[in-house]
Amino acid sequence: MDKKIQIGLLGIGTVGSGVLETLINKDCGVEIKKIADKDTEKIKRYPELSPDIFTTDAKELINDPEINIMVELIGGINPALGFIKAAIKNKKHIVTANKELIAKHGKELFTLAEENNVVILYEAAVCGGIPIIMPLRQSLAGNKISQIAGILNGTTNYILTKMEHEGSEFEDVLKEAQALGYAEADPTGDVKGHDAAYKTAILASLAFNKTVDINSVYVEGIDGISPIDIGYANELGYKVKLIGLIRNGDKDILDVRVHPMLVSKDHPISAIDDVLNAVEIEAEPVSRVMFSGPGAGKFPTASSVLGDIMAIAREISFTDYPLPMMRYDKQRKDADIKHIKDTINKYYIRVTTNNMPGVIGDLGIICGKNGINLCSIVQKGLLSDGNARIILLTEFAKEENILKAVDEIAQRQTTREVNNLIRVMD
Amino acid sequence: MDKKIQIGLLGIGTVGSGVLETLINKDCGVEIKKIADKDTEKIKRYPELSPDIFTTDAKELINDPEINIMVELIGGINPALGFIKAAIKNKKHIVTANKELIAKHGKELFTLAEENNVVILYEAAVCGGIPIIMPLRQSLAGNKISQIAGILNGTTNYILTKMEHEGSEFEDVLKEAQALGYAEADPTGDVKGHDAAYKTAILASLAFNKTVDINSVYVEGIDGISPIDIGYANELGYKVKLIGLIRNGDKDILDVRVHPMLVSKDHPISAIDDVLNAVEIEAEPVSRVMFSGPGAGKFPTASSVLGDIMAIAREISFTDYPLPMMRYDKQRKDADIKHIKDTINKYYIRVTTNNMPGVIGDLGIICGKNGINLCSIVQKGLLSDGNARIILLTEFAKEENILKAVDEIAQRQTTREVNNLIRVMD
Repeated sequence: MDKKIQIGLLGIGTVGSGVLETLINKDCGVEIKKIADKDTEKIKRYPELSPDIFTTDAKELINDPEINIMVELIGGINPALGFIKAAIKNKKHIVTANKELIAKHGKELFTLAEENNVVILYEAAVCGGIPIIMPLRQSLAGNKISQIAGILNGTTNYILTKMEHEGSEFEDVLKEAQALGYAEADPTGDVKGHDAAYKTAILASLAFNKTVDINSVYVEGIDGISPIDIGYANELGYKVKLIGLIRNGDKDILDVRVHPMLVSKDHPISAIDDVLNAVEIEAEPVSRVMFSGPGAGKFPTASSVLGDIMAIAREISFTDYPLPMMRYDKQRKDADIKHIKDTINKYYIRVTTNNMPGVIGDLGIICGKNGINLCSIVQKGLLSDGNARIILLTEFAKEENILKAVDEIAQRQTTREVNNLIRVMD
Repeated sequence: MDKKIQIGLLGIGTVGSGVLETLINKDCGVEIKKIADKDTEKIKRYPELSPDIFTTDAKELINDPEINIMVELIGGINPALGFIKAAIKNKKHIVTANKELIAKHGKELFTLAEENNVVILYEAAVCGGIPIIMPLRQSLAGNKISQIAGILNGTTNYILTKMEHEGSEFEDVLKEAQALGYAEADPTGDVKGHDAAYKTAILASLAFNKTVDINSVYVEGIDGISPIDIGYANELGYKVKLIGLIRNGDKDILDVRVHPMLVSKDHPISAIDDVLNAVEIEAEPVSRVMFSGPGAGKFPTASSVLGDIMAIAREISFTDYPLPMMRYDKQRKDADIKHIKDTINKYYIRVTTNNMPGVIGDLGIICGKNGINLCSIVQKGLLSDGNARIILLTEFAKEENILKAVDEIAQRQTTREVNNLIRVMD
C-alpha cells in the first residue's frame, strides 16, 4: 500500500473512542481523515490530534471525496441511516457496529451498497469483539447450517449469572447492574430481549442468505425469570440463559426467536457466564463450533470495527472490486419465519397448587390429553402457605399444545398459579 | 461467476473423501476437474463420478492448465512438498490441511507462492473444523496479541479426559483410544506433542508475522502424566491439559512451546474435554476470545478445506489478485524464540519422600534458596509403603531456578523420587 486509505469516523461515543484510541496507538495502514460528533466537548479528549479533523457536521465527511471508508458508530436509526445512505451514494465503503440499523434496514442498505459497488461490514454489530460474521461468511461457508444458538446480550447474561450465584431477585440485580454500568438507565432494550433479537435476525439473515424481518422474530425477555426457576433448573441439571435461537425447519421455514431457556449443563454454551457472549453453530460438515468472548464494551467492539476497516483497506489498496465474499446477494429472498405457536420445544412448567391428593396425577393427565409426554415431575415438601410447588419437565411438544395444557392447568380449581413456562435446550 | 472454478484434489484419504463427499452433495460454485490418489481401489467408492477424473499420477493435475486451485490432502512431507511446489510454479492456488508441511516448509512455500502471485490457505491445518487462521488474519487483525493458549490435539485431550474421569493409567487409556480409532497405531506424533507443536508454530508465525522454526519449539508430551497428578490437580482446582502456548515477551522474543499444564478450572479452556480442541486468544483491544470445536475428523476438517476453496474461488472469479489479506508478507523475519529454561511459570511438583519430621520445611527452604515462593504444600496421610507424597505449588519462577531446586530436592537422602514437574496456568 503506497497511499494510506482514508477513513471518516461518525461518532466518538464509547465504541468510537475505543476505535480512535486504538488507531492513534497503532499503525493499521489507515489514516483518520475526519471525525464528526455533535458534542464538541469530546474533541478535547484528544489533544494529540489536529483540531482540524473534528467537525460537528457529518456532511463534511460524507462529501469528502478522499474518504474511502465511513465508520458509523453513532448507533440507533436516526441520523445514522441517512448518513450511511448518503455516504454509500458517494461510493464510500461502510463499517458499522449498528445492530438495530442492520436488523431493521439491512436489505435497503445492502441493495444500495451493491448498486454503488461498495460493501457494508458489520462484524461489531453481533457479539462485540467475537469474530462471528466473517467466519460464517468465509471459513464456514461450505456448511449447511442446522442451528445457531447464542448468548448475545451481556447485560442479561450478567443479571442471570448474578441471580444464579446469589439467589437474588431480577429487580434487585438489575438495580445493581445499573449502578455498576453493566445495564443502562433504560434497560428495556436489553432485558426485554430486543437487543438480542437484532443480533439474532442479523445472524439468521447471513446464515441462510435470506432477509429476516425483525418484526417476525418472537422475543421474550428475562424479566419474568425468578431465582426459584433458576434454583430448580440447577437441581435438574440446567442453567437459565437468554438464548437467540435459529433453526432451519422443513420447507425452508426458519425458526428465529429470542427467549430465556433452561440450557443443559452438558451444553457448552451453559458455561458462558457474566457479561460474556457466545455463539454455537451446528452445521454439516463441521458438526459444532463455538465462539465466545466479550460481546460488548469499548475496546472489544473496537477490535471488530478495526478488523473490518483493515479488511476493506487491504482489498481496496489492490483492487477496485473489494471483498467478493462480503458482497450482498441480490437474489436474497425474504425468509418465511415459523410462528412461535408452531415451534417444537421441551418445556419447564412451574405450577403452584393446593396440596391435595391426586394433583400430580391430574397434571399428568392434562399433559397426556394434549399429546405431551413428561420426562420429570418434581415436588419437594410444601410452601410456607401450605400450597405445593410442582415442576414439570416435558419431552418435545408443539408450543400450541403446551399453551392449551397450561391453560387447562390454570383453570383448575386446585391450581393457585402457573408461575412460569420456560423452553428447554438439552 | 459464469464459469465454475476448477479444482484438483490430491489425495482422497480421510479428509480428502470428506471434501469430495461434501462437494458431490453441494453446489459450492466449484467443480472437481481431477482427483489423484495412488490407491486405485478408492476410486470405486464414487460410482457417481466419471472414472475419467481419477488418476494415479499427480502430474496430470499439476500440468492441467484448467485447474485453478490445487487441494493437497496427502499429508506428510513427501511427496506433498514436491507436488505443491510444482503446482505453485504452474500458477495454481493451494489449499492444504498439511500442518507438518506448513510448519516445516511454510517460509519456502509462501515465498514461492508470492513470487507466482498465488496464495496458500491452510485453515484446516490448525484445529480441523474450527475457524482460527482466517479470524486471526481478518476480524482480529487490529489487535496486538499477548498470548495464545490452545488445546490443539484431540487424541491427547481424549486420553487426558478419560484418565481424569476413570482414574486410569496413560498406557491403558492409550490402548483403548487406539482400539476406538481415536489414536493411531503409532501414536508418537500425538502423545509426544509433535502434532500440537506444528499447529502452535503455525499459529505463532501468523499471530506475530514471523517465521517460527519448528525445531526451536520446546515440546513435551503427555506420556509422563499419571492419574495421581490429575487427581491432585483436581483437588487443587485444576485440570491437566496438553497446551500449545504462545506468549509475546520482552524485546520481541517469542515464548512458543507445547507441554502439559495444570489449567485452572476458572480458565474457559479447562472445560474443553474429549476430542474437542480450543484456542484462546488474549489481545488488545479485544481482551479474550475463544474458539472451540472439533479439531480433527473427516467432515470437520473438510469444512475448513471447503471454506478456503470457496474463499479463493469467489475472489478469482472477480479479480486476478486474490485475497490481499491472505498473502504472505515478504518482510516477515525469523522469530527469536525464548529457551524453555528462561521461561517464567508457576509449577506443580510431586515428590515422594521418607516420612520424617522436617521434610516439608526442608523442601520449603530449598525453594526459598532458589528464589521460589510456594503458594501451596499438600501432604495427606502416608503411602502404603510408609513414604510420604508431597505436592508443591509455586508462584511464578524462572524455569532454570525450578530445575535447580528440583535437582537439589532429588539429591536429598530423604527424597525417594521427584515424580513429576508440571507447569501451571491460572
